Amino acid sequence: MLDSPMTFHIDPQLERDSIWVCDLSLCQVRLRNDSRWPWLILVPKRPEVVDITDLSEADGAQLMAEIRSSHHAVMAWRHPLKTNIAWLGNVVRQLHIHVIGRREGDTGWPGPVWGIANPVPYTNTAIDTHVTCLRDWLIG
Amino acid sequence: MLDSPMTFHIDPQLERDSIWVCDLSLCQVRLRNDSRWPWLILVPKRPEVVDITDLSEADGAQLMAEIRSSHHAVMAWRHPLKTNIAWLGNVVRQLHIHVIGRREGDTGWPGPVWGIANPVPYTNTAIDTHVTCLRDWLIG
Repeated sequence: MLDSPMTFHIDPQLERDSIWVCDLSLCQVRLRNDSRWPWLILVPKRPEVVDITDLSEADGAQLMAEIRSSHHAVMAWRHPLKTNIAWLGNVVRQLHIHVIGRREGDTGWPGPVWGIANPVPYTNTAIDTHVTCLRDWLIG
Repeated sequence: MLDSPMTFHIDPQLERDSIWVCDLSLCQVRLRNDSRWPWLILVPKRPEVVDITDLSEADGAQLMAEIRSSHHAVMAWRHPLKTNIAWLGNVVRQLHIHVIGRREGDTGWPGPVWGIANPVPYTNTAIDTHVTCLRDWLIG
């Protein structure tokens, strides 16, 4: 059966560059596969969403709640100094929110991390460990 | 009289690099004084706020509403392709949210804009025009 055009899909580049962690009420949470920074990506599970205003007001409020939870999860998981939170969409248009742990002296500090070449993928063992830990923080 | 330590203040660097536009319910809205991109900065008028989770849940929901309004204002004011929305805080710790209009081929496209040297300040006449226009969009 063909999908309806209004079915939610993850952009192929987002899918290739990150690993599924869990589903929250609004967003799919993914781990960016680059061990240089502790980096989550939230993808609202709504079809055809590009700008924040393509979400309903209720979904916008829920997104803020899930951003806050993801900030807490990143801080608890890897104890960075702080998070950088952003949605840009210049390359991948589908709305996705970056929640990135930063510490003084990390790669690119104090600049932003997008576009810094040569990602360092996690090992399979590290992925299992991190995803298990993140699920505990995010959905208990 | 000395201010209470819990009085809201704008960080001096934020104040120097941007121009007051208007006050919304939660945030002060400022125009970044760099004409290369249409760029608003929202500063929640709460003392001692660094992370998004330093805001109450109600303030977080209000912030999302004001981000949406600011996105609409930037789109109506300068008709960019889209906005980039982010809070980083790596240099200036006080929580402030960037709402930046982007178009294909602008300075830095498709990368992020933070840290690109040599800002191009607006003329005084342009500031008056833009601030008036933005106030119309933001507070009617």
